[in-house]
Amino acid sequence: MAVGLKAFPNIPEIDGVKIGVAEAGIKRPNKKDVVVFELCEGASVVGVFTQNVFCAAPVRLCQKHLALTDARYLLINTGNANAGTGKSGVMNALETCRVLADQAGVPVEAILPFSTGVIGEPLPVDKIVAAIPSALDDLSADDWQSAGVGIMTTDTLPKGSFRTFEFEGQTFTVGGISKGAGMIRPNMATMLGYVFSDIAIEKSVLHAVLKEVVNKSFNRITIDGDTSTNDSCIAVATGKAGNELITSVDSPLAKAFVSAFTEVMQELAHAIVRDGEGATKFVTVEVVGAAKLSDATKTAFEVAHSPLVKTALFASDPNWGRILAVVGRSGVEELDVDKVQLHINGFEIVRDGGRSPGYIEEHGQEAMSPEEIHIVIDLGAGEASDTVWTTDFSHEYVTINAEYRT
Amino acid sequence: MAVGLKAFPNIPEIDGVKIGVAEAGIKRPNKKDVVVFELCEGASVVGVFTQNVFCAAPVRLCQKHLALTDARYLLINTGNANAGTGKSGVMNALETCRVLADQAGVPVEAILPFSTGVIGEPLPVDKIVAAIPSALDDLSADDWQSAGVGIMTTDTLPKGSFRTFEFEGQTFTVGGISKGAGMIRPNMATMLGYVFSDIAIEKSVLHAVLKEVVNKSFNRITIDGDTSTNDSCIAVATGKAGNELITSVDSPLAKAFVSAFTEVMQELAHAIVRDGEGATKFVTVEVVGAAKLSDATKTAFEVAHSPLVKTALFASDPNWGRILAVVGRSGVEELDVDKVQLHINGFEIVRDGGRSPGYIEEHGQEAMSPEEIHIVIDLGAGEASDTVWTTDFSHEYVTINAEYRT
Repeated sequence: MAVGLKAFPNIPEIDGVKIGVAEAGIKRPNKKDVVVFELCEGASVVGVFTQNVFCAAPVRLCQKHLALTDARYLLINTGNANAGTGKSGVMNALETCRVLADQAGVPVEAILPFSTGVIGEPLPVDKIVAAIPSALDDLSADDWQSAGVGIMTTDTLPKGSFRTFEFEGQTFTVGGISKGAGMIRPNMATMLGYVFSDIAIEKSVLHAVLKEVVNKSFNRITIDGDTSTNDSCIAVATGKAGNELITSVDSPLAKAFVSAFTEVMQELAHAIVRDGEGATKFVTVEVVGAAKLSDATKTAFEVAHSPLVKTALFASDPNWGRILAVVGRSGVEELDVDKVQLHINGFEIVRDGGRSPGYIEEHGQEAMSPEEIHIVIDLGAGEASDTVWTTDFSHEYVTINAEYRT
Repeated sequence: MAVGLKAFPNIPEIDGVKIGVAEAGIKRPNKKDVVVFELCEGASVVGVFTQNVFCAAPVRLCQKHLALTDARYLLINTGNANAGTGKSGVMNALETCRVLADQAGVPVEAILPFSTGVIGEPLPVDKIVAAIPSALDDLSADDWQSAGVGIMTTDTLPKGSFRTFEFEGQTFTVGGISKGAGMIRPNMATMLGYVFSDIAIEKSVLHAVLKEVVNKSFNRITIDGDTSTNDSCIAVATGKAGNELITSVDSPLAKAFVSAFTEVMQELAHAIVRDGEGATKFVTVEVVGAAKLSDATKTAFEVAHSPLVKTALFASDPNWGRILAVVGRSGVEELDVDKVQLHINGFEIVRDGGRSPGYIEEHGQEAMSPEEIHIVIDLGAGEASDTVWTTDFSHEYVTINAEYRT
């Protein structure tokens, strides 16, 4: 059902990063479900994580380890989220880190653990531990696609993106993978996203870039409004490109990097929406003319979350009254409804708060029929704007989520 | 698909209230779609209305008329919401009021108009105006069921409730009707609710009672989180019972009235949930042990709105991790996840933030299988509590809302 999701791209090697994948039997027999990233010494590694208070055990441990030392390995399992598992969940995550640390010859704090899958079940530590040697044996520089497959849950396709850019004759690479299809309304990070570059950049600068760019990518997508307990997004810069270390976001090279990094992050975020559970539409909700950014953001999210709007999108039904109704309840202060305009895929639907004089039902149907829908809501109040990406709400969404554990 | 919705009750006559119903051909031919309530002179009439800024034309006019004079007629049409219709919508609503006022011999301000149905289409004024004489001819004291049917949209059954109570040898009656099945997350009032009594009570006191009770009934139900543009709830007290006028909520008679009024309002509100679009479950979400009321209210609503929780309810799947995930993202400050408890239909599922030691999957399945589900979430932080009623999220919900206009 994925909407316009391209085949997994041919991501080049990124010097300083190696990938190992194994089949631990957590998901189902003969499925890739454990992924290890090996990072070179001296890499800058930073992360942003879910704001859900019920954050999963690996998220807690990840944050602790990141604060203690430089990360050398990312250890990811799918099939089990190790969330809602209390103190034993943290002990279990720590045990998998300890085993990998011993075999790799690094301190346990140099391992960052990640889990995704069913909530509330104990982590199958034995299966993960048993798979670690084969993941390490498998380490290579270019098996991005297997890593993309190895972190999937209800995703129908693996998700990857990369950009290369030139700066003063030198080529830099930014590439990564993501996963997620449901329980998607990230708040500071996505389900799981990993972006790597060979650039040399100071850890604090990379962290600032990540926090800024996540707000234009993973934090602006929503499928069902449910923030996951496991959202994690990691950025790694190995420094192997050998450029002079970036110490500020204002340098020309930093700007070129941020541009490529943003494109990769947005493509990975959009891929999650395109593969959203039951998605038949890829929907861009753009709110312009807001008095302030928070008005634009909340209106865009309210429209993107409305079950009535989403079912109308599924039906390709130009039931624009539902969109107006959401704008009216979205909590924008001093909203002047007589100034609201609505365009869908370029067709003017609403002018001055009511049906546009030139609007005919056929325009609405033509606007709503493509797979890619661009809704533009003008609040007529100022200069602020924001954009959120989402999906429609289909029978398939209900089927997937009613039968997730069966 | 209605869940445990009883047959329309045999509401007795309420002295001072007459009901007329007509077929205007707005919905479909030969369907009741215009309802007129005639109220005696001197009745106290008060209302609460949608907080949606895009409130419908009749809502604006209703509020204006209520402020100007005592209402003598309620004029309700279904099939068209007269919302998103700009200034011409208000002129159209006013025209229907004017025709009824002329024929009834009352000032136009004594007419309160209400509309429900499709948003964004012009009100079919001619059809409504043509039906007014037959609605007036039809006026009688006891045709509550026809009124219940005449205000339905996607409702599968008409909704009514009544209570009688004795006070110092005298019998008082409270009775009413409601409608609504989708776009239901009332904010100060329901789609449409009308409650009548023969009691004598001062208008300001009745208004205070209505505002209080609506927060324990219509403002605590949600089907899809979408606040309608047309929500209106009207309370009428005719005074025909002849009791000494109630001038304070503290009198013993006032307390007896509030008790009966609350029961009727809750039954009408629950009926909307039981008939919720595609509903297969009637779900009570009770949050206890909150540090403050707003924590309890927002947590209950977040759980009630979560598509993942609602699809799990549809599947009778004890996927309690989804409930914990919502509690964790609901924005409760200083939530201590290790103190959270969860019971479903009396089964202890979560203790101290993790799976209860005695929990087995069979308990979860037994807890989730009935049509009536009572979820109790204890935040372990204080004494505040609140309750919200909702439905599950089924294939039928998607079908109804994807095909609403076809």
